[in-house]
Amino acid sequence: MLRVKLVIEYDGSNYVGWQRQDKGKSVQGEIEKSLKKIFNDKIELCAAGRTDAGVHALGQVAHFDLKHNVIEEKKIFRAINFFLKQNNNKITVLNSEFVSQKFHSRFSALKKIYLYKIHNRDTNSHLLSQRAWFVPQKVTLTKMKRASKFLLGKHDFNAFRSTNCQAKKTLRTIDDIIISKRKDLINIRVEGKSFMHNQVRIIVGTLINVGINKLSEICVKKILSSKDRNDAGPTAPAEGLYLEKIVY
Amino acid sequence: MLRVKLVIEYDGSNYVGWQRQDKGKSVQGEIEKSLKKIFNDKIELCAAGRTDAGVHALGQVAHFDLKHNVIEEKKIFRAINFFLKQNNNKITVLNSEFVSQKFHSRFSALKKIYLYKIHNRDTNSHLLSQRAWFVPQKVTLTKMKRASKFLLGKHDFNAFRSTNCQAKKTLRTIDDIIISKRKDLINIRVEGKSFMHNQVRIIVGTLINVGINKLSEICVKKILSSKDRNDAGPTAPAEGLYLEKIVY
Repeated sequence: MLRVKLVIEYDGSNYVGWQRQDKGKSVQGEIEKSLKKIFNDKIELCAAGRTDAGVHALGQVAHFDLKHNVIEEKKIFRAINFFLKQNNNKITVLNSEFVSQKFHSRFSALKKIYLYKIHNRDTNSHLLSQRAWFVPQKVTLTKMKRASKFLLGKHDFNAFRSTNCQAKKTLRTIDDIIISKRKDLINIRVEGKSFMHNQVRIIVGTLINVGINKLSEICVKKILSSKDRNDAGPTAPAEGLYLEKIVY
Repeated sequence: MLRVKLVIEYDGSNYVGWQRQDKGKSVQGEIEKSLKKIFNDKIELCAAGRTDAGVHALGQVAHFDLKHNVIEEKKIFRAINFFLKQNNNKITVLNSEFVSQKFHSRFSALKKIYLYKIHNRDTNSHLLSQRAWFVPQKVTLTKMKRASKFLLGKHDFNAFRSTNCQAKKTLRTIDDIIISKRKDLINIRVEGKSFMHNQVRIIVGTLINVGINKLSEICVKKILSSKDRNDAGPTAPAEGLYLEKIVY
């Protein structure tokens, strides 16, 4: 058995998400189709994080096993890209490498870095459509930065997960939240070992509410203690979210 | 008569260019349609620079005249955006202001700044499709920077214009060419008072040939002297070009 690690970028706009589903195009399904064509075998991919419909990735990581060593390491990602392109997919495999059987895309991950992009100006931009969340209100970054500090470390993030989230344990650790602005673009990077369903998007939606003065900074601390999803801000739209990097 | 100045951003991908034409959607035509709806009058727009099909703008400037002062200055661009959106246009008017009759979007321009974006890595990116030119070869920026110096100042740019260009005089002055790289993105800014048809794109195509070692740096000087379009590099694709700013 030979384990192969892939690094994957995608425009998630027209996919039902990473995970294969009964209906619709999934990123996993499209790459598995390509693998089937290359290896003439049913191959199952396992990813570091399952991104939702519309969420993008700059550095998703997935692995799969090959029964036989029939191909050069670096030829794999080029072959996958060839078949992905044939089917008009908006997915690019950036790299492929052979790794030890001990490597697991999900369980070996030390840290996941999500990037959320907000386009913050008066008027919407078509050059950034499906690439960032358009927020026209005045956003005060210093407030968001101070509010974000309450979320760092280990907390019960029950208020910051989708009501559909099926995780049994709700304690999570956030290593860092880095907020910066360059021209009209606000970047929010959220780093941690694992996240619950919609956790990053609800964090962003809540921090933006602080930034536009709809919530006070200290409220973020209170929301965390309340453990009530209704207290937190909206789920920021999928189009602004990028799974940026998995650290091993 | 009241002169109105507009600043306009657009994704040029699906337009025949700025200029109204017999067939196809033009940026000028779509904005003029919106003006017709607002003022119930045929209004003609005059732009600082006519961008080609597929070329984007971050800060195109255009002006038009109103017979009567019937609307507030800042309501104009919001009203245009309303009608542009109704017709699914990828155009955003960023601002509108009343200016003196002496102002002319084209003739008053002191400088035009074009930005050309090149995505330079091993594999194509769908997140940047129609937003940058994908160049997979290794590009040496220092060579491009040195070669670009030969183009600064006043020269006969006959070798660097489309064979369809109808300009009678071919002397042009380039004020600056600024080349920078951030991660995988190379930005080339070309600044000058006026440019001929495809001039910026041929400059970029030629400089990239230097960057990928297809041309030596000194060749750029020779191409300029030859005045022969066949000696220069390819016309870089429209999708990487942005009319960034007009300085008055």
